[in-house]
Amino acid sequence: MSSTIELGKISLSVFGESHGPAIGVVIDNLPAGEEIDIEKLLEFMARRAPKKDGTSTMRNETDFPNIISGFYNGKTTGEALCAVIKNSDQHSNDYKDISSLARPGHADYTGYVRYNGANDRRGGGHFSGRLTASLVFAGAICGQMLEKRGIVTGAHIYSIANKKDTAFDPARLNAKTLQAVKKKYLPVIDDNADEKMRTVIQKARESLDSVGGIIECGAIGVPCGIGDPVFGGLENRISQLVFAIPAVKGIEFGAGFAAAELMGSQNNDEFYIEENMVKTRTNNAGGILGGISNGMPIIFRAAFKPTPSIARPQNTVDFVQNKNDVIEIKGRHDPCIVPRAVPCVEAALNIALMSFLC
Amino acid sequence: MSSTIELGKISLSVFGESHGPAIGVVIDNLPAGEEIDIEKLLEFMARRAPKKDGTSTMRNETDFPNIISGFYNGKTTGEALCAVIKNSDQHSNDYKDISSLARPGHADYTGYVRYNGANDRRGGGHFSGRLTASLVFAGAICGQMLEKRGIVTGAHIYSIANKKDTAFDPARLNAKTLQAVKKKYLPVIDDNADEKMRTVIQKARESLDSVGGIIECGAIGVPCGIGDPVFGGLENRISQLVFAIPAVKGIEFGAGFAAAELMGSQNNDEFYIEENMVKTRTNNAGGILGGISNGMPIIFRAAFKPTPSIARPQNTVDFVQNKNDVIEIKGRHDPCIVPRAVPCVEAALNIALMSFLC
Amino acid sequence: MSSTIELGKISLSVFGESHGPAIGVVIDNLPAGEEIDIEKLLEFMARRAPKKDGTSTMRNETDFPNIISGFYNGKTTGEALCAVIKNSDQHSNDYKDISSLARPGHADYTGYVRYNGANDRRGGGHFSGRLTASLVFAGAICGQMLEKRGIVTGAHIYSIANKKDTAFDPARLNAKTLQAVKKKYLPVIDDNADEKMRTVIQKARESLDSVGGIIECGAIGVPCGIGDPVFGGLENRISQLVFAIPAVKGIEFGAGFAAAELMGSQNNDEFYIEENMVKTRTNNAGGILGGISNGMPIIFRAAFKPTPSIARPQNTVDFVQNKNDVIEIKGRHDPCIVPRAVPCVEAALNIALMSFLC
Amino acid sequence: MSSTIELGKISLSVFGESHGPAIGVVIDNLPAGEEIDIEKLLEFMARRAPKKDGTSTMRNETDFPNIISGFYNGKTTGEALCAVIKNSDQHSNDYKDISSLARPGHADYTGYVRYNGANDRRGGGHFSGRLTASLVFAGAICGQMLEKRGIVTGAHIYSIANKKDTAFDPARLNAKTLQAVKKKYLPVIDDNADEKMRTVIQKARESLDSVGGIIECGAIGVPCGIGDPVFGGLENRISQLVFAIPAVKGIEFGAGFAAAELMGSQNNDEFYIEENMVKTRTNNAGGILGGISNGMPIIFRAAFKPTPSIARPQNTVDFVQNKNDVIEIKGRHDPCIVPRAVPCVEAALNIALMSFLC
Repeated sequence: MSSTIELGKISLSVFGESHGPAIGVVIDNLPAGEEIDIEKLLEFMARRAPKKDGTSTMRNETDFPNIISGFYNGKTTGEALCAVIKNSDQHSNDYKDISSLARPGHADYTGYVRYNGANDRRGGGHFSGRLTASLVFAGAICGQMLEKRGIVTGAHIYSIANKKDTAFDPARLNAKTLQAVKKKYLPVIDDNADEKMRTVIQKARESLDSVGGIIECGAIGVPCGIGDPVFGGLENRISQLVFAIPAVKGIEFGAGFAAAELMGSQNNDEFYIEENMVKTRTNNAGGILGGISNGMPIIFRAAFKPTPSIARPQNTVDFVQNKNDVIEIKGRHDPCIVPRAVPCVEAALNIALMSFLC
Repeated sequence: MSSTIELGKISLSVFGESHGPAIGVVIDNLPAGEEIDIEKLLEFMARRAPKKDGTSTMRNETDFPNIISGFYNGKTTGEALCAVIKNSDQHSNDYKDISSLARPGHADYTGYVRYNGANDRRGGGHFSGRLTASLVFAGAICGQMLEKRGIVTGAHIYSIANKKDTAFDPARLNAKTLQAVKKKYLPVIDDNADEKMRTVIQKARESLDSVGGIIECGAIGVPCGIGDPVFGGLENRISQLVFAIPAVKGIEFGAGFAAAELMGSQNNDEFYIEENMVKTRTNNAGGILGGISNGMPIIFRAAFKPTPSIARPQNTVDFVQNKNDVIEIKGRHDPCIVPRAVPCVEAALNIALMSFLC
Repeated sequence: MSSTIELGKISLSVFGESHGPAIGVVIDNLPAGEEIDIEKLLEFMARRAPKKDGTSTMRNETDFPNIISGFYNGKTTGEALCAVIKNSDQHSNDYKDISSLARPGHADYTGYVRYNGANDRRGGGHFSGRLTASLVFAGAICGQMLEKRGIVTGAHIYSIANKKDTAFDPARLNAKTLQAVKKKYLPVIDDNADEKMRTVIQKARESLDSVGGIIECGAIGVPCGIGDPVFGGLENRISQLVFAIPAVKGIEFGAGFAAAELMGSQNNDEFYIEENMVKTRTNNAGGILGGISNGMPIIFRAAFKPTPSIARPQNTVDFVQNKNDVIEIKGRHDPCIVPRAVPCVEAALNIALMSFLC
Repeated sequence: MSSTIELGKISLSVFGESHGPAIGVVIDNLPAGEEIDIEKLLEFMARRAPKKDGTSTMRNETDFPNIISGFYNGKTTGEALCAVIKNSDQHSNDYKDISSLARPGHADYTGYVRYNGANDRRGGGHFSGRLTASLVFAGAICGQMLEKRGIVTGAHIYSIANKKDTAFDPARLNAKTLQAVKKKYLPVIDDNADEKMRTVIQKARESLDSVGGIIECGAIGVPCGIGDPVFGGLENRISQLVFAIPAVKGIEFGAGFAAAELMGSQNNDEFYIEENMVKTRTNNAGGILGGISNGMPIIFRAAFKPTPSIARPQNTVDFVQNKNDVIEIKGRHDPCIVPRAVPCVEAALNIALMSFLC
C-alpha cells in the first residue's frame, strides 16, 4: 500500500516520475466487456491539462494515454488494464541547481529522507502533480462505467482563496448541473465567480505568489446500500483516494466541519417517502450514513493548499549539506492548481464508487 | 476491507454488535516482546467511558478487555492479539418499538438495505459507537509501543458547537501539553473552555437536542521519513482510520481548510536548521509533506456531527412498510459524544503511526 | 498477511495459542442473511475432534465455538462473524521441561527466532494444530453457504504411509461419494483401506513413532468461470489456505505430479458437449484451467508429513543455551493426524471457493 | 488479487496480453537505492528465452524490458518500478481460425466464460506463458537484492517425462551448484540427464506431442526466522507465486509427497550445533518449519504438465456455437516448456523471499 491500492475487487497501481520516461497506471480486475469511448476519455483528461489563459502553467504537457493491455476491440477485457503516458517537455535543467535545497511545502526533503536520497527528485519525481494524470485516466474509465449504471459525478471549484462559487444544492443536485460545469473553462456554477477567481489567480501570479482553494464534488444516482461499515465506508475509501492528490489537506462530507456547530435537530436529515422512494429533505450527511450510501446525492469537499512552488526567494535548508540557505524556484508553475485538480477529485470519487460496484 | 483493514504489516479486525454477546478486535502482526502495562491500557480505555457529570449518557458500560491471545507474560507474542469486551446492560427493550423506523442521522436504513435486513439492528448493531471500544483498545496498545519509540500522541476538544478551546501550537506542541490534557475530565487546554462547553452540552440536553464538535489530535517525536507517497501517505492512512469512528464527517491536516484561503508565501513552512535538525518555523503542513512526516508535530482535526439520537419527535420513515412516520427515540443518549471520542481519535492516530513502524 | 488473510471480499483472522485462554476466528464480509445450521456446523467440527479408537490422541478437546458477533436470529448478519473456542484440559506441565529444547519437525526453534523468544511456546502456541479448529469452523460456515449454491465438497484419506484408499474418480465424482465418506469414522471410500490404515497407525503408536499421509479433496457443482488468472487463481488461493494447516508439505491439482510424466496427448482433457454443457472426458486438470474452474469436479491432494511429536528420544538442541541435547517428548500425541486433518482440508477448499462467490 | 498481489510491503502488478502491444509489471515498494546490474538482469531473462536447439519453440521473442519508472542512476528509487516489454512477431493469423474452439488443456474456454467473451484470446491472451517474462523480470530484480543479503537461489530441471536429473542435496546445497546450473543450456546437474531429456523432448516433437516435467528450486543463506505462521508462511507465499506460472499443477517442499510415506522418526530432521549455528542433519522440511525458515536450504519442487498445445488433431468443442468439433493447433509451440520455466520458478522464489526482507 503505497502507490498500489486494493479497493474491494479492483486494484490500482500508479507509477512514474515527473522527469522519467513515462508515468502510468495499472487497473486490475475491472469488469469485462465495458465499452470505453476514447474520445470522451481524452476529453476528461483534457480537463486536467494546463489552461492557456494564465490561470495555470504554460508547460505543454501532452498526456496521451497509450493503453497497452486490458483493452481490446473497444472494450475492457476484464484483465489488468495498463496505460502509459510519456513524459516530454521536461526541461530538467530548470530544476538542476535546486536539487538539494528543500522547496518549502514540497516533498523534496521528506522524500530524500524516506528513500535515503535514492529517489528521482527531478521535478518532484514521484511526488509531482503530474502523477495525477494516471489517477485521472483511471477515473475517466470508471466514470464511463458509472454512467452506464445510472450514476453521474461531477465537481466544481467551490472557492479559490476567499472567492466562492455557488455551492451544490446537496439535496437536489442534478445531472444537468454536473454536466454543465464540466464544459466550462473554469468549472464554476456562477459566472461571476469565474471572473473573481481569475482575478485572484492573476494577482497571485503577478505578486510571484500562489493561491489554493476548495473543490466540491458530487454524485447522483448512487443507489442506497453501497459501502461498508467501519474501515470500508464510502468516506474512508473516498478520502484514501483523495489524499493521493498532492496538495489536499482536508476533506469533508455533507455539512462537514459546519456540522460540528449545528444542533442535532438541525443536522439530522429527516426521512420521507417520495414516489415510493426513501429520501431526506436536507442532506447534511452528504448521502452517507454509517459509511453506506442512503440514495441521496453524495457530496464532499477537498481543501487544496496554495501551490508551494512560488518564484519569491524563500528561506530553506540544503538537506545534503545540512545548512540554512535561500531558494529561488525557477521554471513555470501554476499560481493555482485548483482548476486543474477538479477532474482529479472527480476521478477519485469515480474510482471509489466503481470499486464498490464490481 | 470492511471491518478488517491491512495497514502495512499490521492488520486489524473489529467485530461485534451493540446488543450481541460481545465486541472485540484482533490485531495481527504486532511486534513481539513489547511490554503492555495493563493499568495504563485501562486508563486509556476509561477515557472513552461515559462521563458521570451529565456531559454524556448514564449507561453503565463496562469495557473490560479480555485479552485471549497474542499476550503472554506481560508482553505481546507477535502473533494475533485478540481482545473480547463483553456487552452488558443492554436494555434491548428501549429499542424494540423503533426497529423499523429509521432514526435520522443513523445507519438504520442504510444498514437495512446493505444487509437485506439481516443485520442486528438492536442499539445500532455493528454501527454503534460502542464498537469504538475495540478501536480504543488497539490504539492504547499501539500508543504504549509508540512511547517506547519516543513518540507521544494526544488529543483535545478543539470545539463543541461554537465554543472553542485554545488550539495546539502546531510548531511547538510538546509532551507536557499532550500529557496534561489526558488527565482532565473534559480534555481541554483552556479551563474556561471547559465551563463553556459543559454549559452548551447541558443546554442541548435540556432542550432534548444534541451538539457536535471538533477534536484536534497531534503527535510529537515522529521522525522524518515515515509514510509513503500516493495512496499510502500518513493523511490517507490516518483518515481511513478516523472515518471508522461513527459521526466523523471531516478531517483536515495542519492548516487544513484554512490553507485554502492562504497565499503560498503564507502557507509554505520555511525550513531552517536548529540543533543540527531540519525544522520548519510554521507548521501549516501538520508535519506531513507528500504523505511523509517531516519531523515536526503531526496535527489534524476531525469534525463530529451532533449525536443523531435526540429525544425530540422527528419525521422519518418506516423502511419496512415504506411509509412516513414519526419517531421518538427513547433510552439514554449522549447529548454530545465529542468528549468520549477524544481517545478514539487518538487511537486512530496511534494505530496509523504504529503501522508504519513495524 | 500472517494470521489474517484477505480473499476477494472475504477476510479471515485466526487467533489463539494452544495453551492460552482461547482460540478463534473472525470472518469478515460474509454474505448477509445466510442461515447457519448449528447442529450441522458442530457435526463438521466434530470430524476434527480426536478419535477414541486409538488412531489419535486421547486429549479431550472440547471445541465448542461460541459465536459472539455477526450471527443473529440463526442467520449471518453480513458483518464480521467472530467465534471463540475456549481452551481447556491444557496440561501445561507436560510441556514444561522441554521448553527450550527444539522438538524436531516442530516450529519451536523457528518461532523462537522469529519472535525473539516472546511467543507463547506452550503446546506449540500459535503453531499448534489446535488452531485448525478455527479454520474448520470457518470452513463449516462456508460449506453450508456453498451447498445452498449447489456446490458439494468433501475429502477422504487418500493414503496413510503406503496404505492407499480408492482415489476419487476425477471426471465422475458425485455428491453421494462425497457425503458418504463424511459419515465414516475413518473417512475412506474402500473399507479395506480402513483396516489397513488402522493397522499401520497402531503399529506406529506401538513403536513410539508416527505416520503421515495424503488427503484428497474435491468439489462438484462449481460452475465454469470461477477464479482469476495469474495470482488469483483457484490453485493459488486453495494452496495459500491449505498450507495454513500444520504438517502440509505438498499440494497437487488433478493429475498433479503424475502429469509431469504424461504426454500432452494423454494429459489434455478433451472437451465434449453433454446435455448442452461443456464437459471433459478425463479430468487431469482437476477442474481448473488458467486458474479458473471449467465446470468439472475440482480435485486436489495435500501431503501431510508424519506427526513430528514422537515419544522416542531424539537428538536436538537447546536453542537458549545453544548446545546439543536429547529430547523425550512427553504428553499425548496423535501417531497420525491425517484422519483429523480431513475436515481441515475440506474447510480450506470451502473458504477458497466461497471467497470467489461473494 | 488477480494479476496484482500484495506480499508484505511489496506488491506486484502484472499486465499484458500475448498479442497486445506490450506486457509488463509494476513492482511497488522495493527498497530504495539498490543497484541493479542490467546486464545480469538481461542474462537472467535470457534464460527464459526460447532455446534454439529444438527443445523449444522457434518463435523469435525479444523480451527487452524497458524500465520506465522507479529506477534512476542505476538504482531503485524505492517507488513503483515499472517495466514494459513490447510484443512483436505476433503472427496473429496462426490463431485466427481457432478462436472459438477450446484448445484442450488451455484457458480458452474458462477465460471466455469468466470474461463473458470480452478477453483478448489471441495467442492465449493474458493466460499466455509470455506473461511469465514479467514475473522473471521481477524475480531477476529481487534476485540481485537477495545476493546482496547473502542469499543465493537457483533451480534445475528435476525431470522431464520420466528422465531424472540428480536431485539437490537438501542439507548440503551450496552456491557453486546453484550458480553452475544457471550457465548450462539445459539447466541440469548431471550431464547424462541433459542427453536423455533432449531425446525425450525430440521424440515428443516428432510425434506431434509434448512432455512435462518437474523443476527443483532452492535457496541458501536464508537466515532462520523468515516467514510468518498460518497464512503468511514461506510455503503459502511461494506457492501463491508459483501457481501464477501457467502449467504448474503441483508443488512440494522438502520431502514433500514422499514425506507422507515416511515414519516420523525418519522424517524429523534432528537438530545439532555446528560452528555455533543450529543446523539439521537431514532436510526433509525443505528449510521451513511452521512457515518460517530454519536456516537450512529452502527446497521445493514444482510439477509442470506437458505443453497443452500439440499439433495432433484433438476432439474439442466450439464454445460459442456450443457444439462438438475437432481442433488442429497450428503455429510453433514448445514440445516442452520446462527448460524455459526454470527461471520462472526461481523468480517466484526470489520475489517471495525478498517480500519478507523489506
